[in-house]
Amino acid sequence: MAELQVNCLYDFEGDDYNGELSFAAGETLSILRQDIGDGWWEARSQDGRQGLVPETYVEIISAPEPQYPPPPPPMVADTAFTTNGSMQQHQQQMPQQQQSFDDWDDDWDDDDDVSSNSTGGASQQDLAGQGNFGLAAPMRREGKQISPGSEMSKYGTVKSSFNRFSHFAKSGGEAFLMGQGEERVSDSDKIRIIETNEGHVWLSQDAAYTCTVTSPKKESKMKGLKSYIAYQLTPSFSNLQVSRRYKHFDWLHERLECKFVCIPIPPLPDKAVTGRYESEFVQERMRQLQYWVNRMVRHPVICRSDVLHHFLTCTDEKKWKVGKRKAEKDEFQGAKFFQLIEPPNQALETRDIEGKMENFCKFVLNMTENVKTLITVHHDYAKKQLGPFKREYTKIGTSLKQLAQTFILDASAHSGGLTAAIDYTGDAYNEIGEMFEKQPPREAYPLIEALYEYKGILQTYPEVLKVHEGAIGKAKECIKLQEEGKMNETEVTSVLTRADTISYATVAEMNNFQKDRVIDFKAMMQNYLREQIDFYKNLTAKLETALHHYDNA
Amino acid sequence: MAELQVNCLYDFEGDDYNGELSFAAGETLSILRQDIGDGWWEARSQDGRQGLVPETYVEIISAPEPQYPPPPPPMVADTAFTTNGSMQQHQQQMPQQQQSFDDWDDDWDDDDDVSSNSTGGASQQDLAGQGNFGLAAPMRREGKQISPGSEMSKYGTVKSSFNRFSHFAKSGGEAFLMGQGEERVSDSDKIRIIETNEGHVWLSQDAAYTCTVTSPKKESKMKGLKSYIAYQLTPSFSNLQVSRRYKHFDWLHERLECKFVCIPIPPLPDKAVTGRYESEFVQERMRQLQYWVNRMVRHPVICRSDVLHHFLTCTDEKKWKVGKRKAEKDEFQGAKFFQLIEPPNQALETRDIEGKMENFCKFVLNMTENVKTLITVHHDYAKKQLGPFKREYTKIGTSLKQLAQTFILDASAHSGGLTAAIDYTGDAYNEIGEMFEKQPPREAYPLIEALYEYKGILQTYPEVLKVHEGAIGKAKECIKLQEEGKMNETEVTSVLTRADTISYATVAEMNNFQKDRVIDFKAMMQNYLREQIDFYKNLTAKLETALHHYDNA
Repeated sequence: MAELQVNCLYDFEGDDYNGELSFAAGETLSILRQDIGDGWWEARSQDGRQGLVPETYVEIISAPEPQYPPPPPPMVADTAFTTNGSMQQHQQQMPQQQQSFDDWDDDWDDDDDVSSNSTGGASQQDLAGQGNFGLAAPMRREGKQISPGSEMSKYGTVKSSFNRFSHFAKSGGEAFLMGQGEERVSDSDKIRIIETNEGHVWLSQDAAYTCTVTSPKKESKMKGLKSYIAYQLTPSFSNLQVSRRYKHFDWLHERLECKFVCIPIPPLPDKAVTGRYESEFVQERMRQLQYWVNRMVRHPVICRSDVLHHFLTCTDEKKWKVGKRKAEKDEFQGAKFFQLIEPPNQALETRDIEGKMENFCKFVLNMTENVKTLITVHHDYAKKQLGPFKREYTKIGTSLKQLAQTFILDASAHSGGLTAAIDYTGDAYNEIGEMFEKQPPREAYPLIEALYEYKGILQTYPEVLKVHEGAIGKAKECIKLQEEGKMNETEVTSVLTRADTISYATVAEMNNFQKDRVIDFKAMMQNYLREQIDFYKNLTAKLETALHHYDNA
Repeated sequence: MAELQVNCLYDFEGDDYNGELSFAAGETLSILRQDIGDGWWEARSQDGRQGLVPETYVEIISAPEPQYPPPPPPMVADTAFTTNGSMQQHQQQMPQQQQSFDDWDDDWDDDDDVSSNSTGGASQQDLAGQGNFGLAAPMRREGKQISPGSEMSKYGTVKSSFNRFSHFAKSGGEAFLMGQGEERVSDSDKIRIIETNEGHVWLSQDAAYTCTVTSPKKESKMKGLKSYIAYQLTPSFSNLQVSRRYKHFDWLHERLECKFVCIPIPPLPDKAVTGRYESEFVQERMRQLQYWVNRMVRHPVICRSDVLHHFLTCTDEKKWKVGKRKAEKDEFQGAKFFQLIEPPNQALETRDIEGKMENFCKFVLNMTENVKTLITVHHDYAKKQLGPFKREYTKIGTSLKQLAQTFILDASAHSGGLTAAIDYTGDAYNEIGEMFEKQPPREAYPLIEALYEYKGILQTYPEVLKVHEGAIGKAKECIKLQEEGKMNETEVTSVLTRADTISYATVAEMNNFQKDRVIDFKAMMQNYLREQIDFYKNLTAKLETALHHYDNA
């Protein structure tokens, strides 16, 4: 397999002690591993040095030979339309494939052991191209390796490259559009989209709730041979605590991705290679899991789902297994999810929706870049606070303290006040230096953490939007077939209505994303600014106190 | 002549464009020129690169072969005592030597032309060892090349190395101590030292005055072939403006050094090699000359001197020449200055005075290092403000502005407020970046300028203290000679009384220095802190305004 090549965007001075690799902007590195976690990759420089590099400092210049999905078989004709027979066949294989994940307490629990990957290193590849709704977790979570530009074709430019191997086809999109495999949907399962003055939105039917993630505990089994971290989750509606491990989160994540094809499910926190039980790492992961849980319980559609409810409430091992199997056999996964949706009874203008989506694609692409830049900028800023900023103030502090040491040598009465004031000022600058060092965890890090979550959401969006892109393409194809007399009006109208359902769902989710984004970024910016203001006020207060020491000096 | 070698104390990244030389801490450089000015030296690295280096970043490791004073003749016996006949002979040579400096409007006026050094490149060396009171301007002003440690022997450790070639001897110290060449001193010329609760101090007899240095004007003569800058000086006691050029300051500086052997006369601002008429340089020099004039008119002894008065008031060319010649022929120059002093009529304890001076020497040495460090630290700090600090805030500003550009793509009503607030915040951070860039001229530069003046004062102090050290040594020698029966009691008592006069003067000047230091450093620190406080208050206000933009977002 060819190595992934990256171009270094900025100079980076790595910490040897932490195994970091230094590089200069413009250098080319080979990426050896991307599963390090916490935004680090392992890389080798052209002169053979190896070490960790920050993901946001580099830009991929050549993608590795794709391992997944496999290339389409040669000579696949762009056949106008085929049934999704083969899809159904694949779907039937699924339960077997999932079998090995079924045990509550099997050996597959080395949450952080990369060699026995929790989503199954090998089985991941086995799953590839075998249906799995085309949107299995591994695919979407590894999507971030590929730059958004190459991943996301522009709306309105869907060409004949659209074929049954596309993500749309694989998610069962064609079958849904053609009205195949329709199931009876109970009223309580229905997901309604309504028009408001903020556009089309998911109807929130149930009371909102929250869920805390707390008290990570190290637990072990097999007489201590295996150990793992269990997090305690307490949903507000039950106030009953459940214990969940990373593998359970991982399972839920995959289920949500399978089911909610038009909703971007943010990735879980990355795996860590080393120090998995170190308290700092565990605390950080807990915080990230809390972010993730917040996002899920906040979503008007996901929060109502059986699978999430099961995850948040089940305390009984047997019931867990039953619920788990039930979730995996959910009839309304993939494109079938759209069967649940009850959109407004009004046809959409394809051109309108295409324009809207094209704009949103641009939004996602630009925001992805913006978020990456903000992360880089604040990562740098935090580094500056920890290093150079602190150092500058400490240097001032030290030099003033030294001056005071000399001034003490003048024992005359009129000198003592100044000496004491300078000594105090030296202390004040040293304390300001320490303030800088303590600032990133209050200021830059929370912002970076929140931005990271958005980076995760944004990187899943291109795949999510492909479903809609596929639907629009398919609908256009059907109109063409009608013009050629190969489909009748009733059939085509029915396809267009169902395509509208996908459009409505996509727009509702887009509006949901935008609503959340405004709330989240407002909070992020406010918190960030408040911390900065507090910081500079404290800094100013220290200087003012120092200044007052000269009043009677 | 062997080149001066320096050790680099810090990393320095030079600006190629400005002809600066980059180097790393620990590197050794050869110094090619020290007369560049503004704290820069010209140096060559071991790999042959040449360029300017900041003086405060390097430390001298080997002094060059001394050009001046010349080594003592071999085999000079430590003769117990000799008359100062030869000294007087040297003094008689002085007027001749000064002859060429005498013309008000001669060709010697290329203030900044290094090749025709204003203090006379060649004549400087000619003067060396020819009397000139041992304390001629060139010697003392170049004293800064030599580290204080090597220059300044500790009080109380004066050994037999004390001989008639010492600075003490050359200043006419021995003659004074022996009561030779005593002149009649008019009452109005007497300089009184009194005891106060702040120790022995110069008696301030006249009302204090100030003098402004303003309106530098480019003037020319010889039909425009020669041009120079004239500064306008206005003393508060006359309110009459006089026009003075750098060469006049230089002349005054030399006269003051010759006359006031126990008072450190700070060096004039350095010469500039290039851009001598550039407005920025002229303004800076004017500010530095103002510092220097302030220091002189503030001094209780110097402010009363005829030579300063002449400099500050004479507007007539003929009268100038008369006054100039009179000053150069002043009978009470060098150690003869001590004849003017009227100290308290009380013998001093040699041990007390030695202890006090030893402590003060330590003070001067330590403070020299402190001041150098403070200059380096604030030079660095200003560089950080101009570069990295500004850059960090501008990066944040730019990344937020970019984010706002993306958020504009979401035209929904609930989004606009946040977008505008983020855009505003971006502007605020950009403005903060610019604030950092504008800060050094308000904050670090004035501090550095004031510290530079002290660096100048401190570097002249070791030479000044040698006069006293010499007197103490000579007095001890006389006591020994009395013990050996080679001097009688009357003679020795008389020597000790006169040695006390030198001690009293040195202590009075030391107390004057300390009083000024306390006033100056208090003002420096207060100004610096006030500027920092203002700065951070403005910064905080900008952030607060930005934060308010989110209130209704």
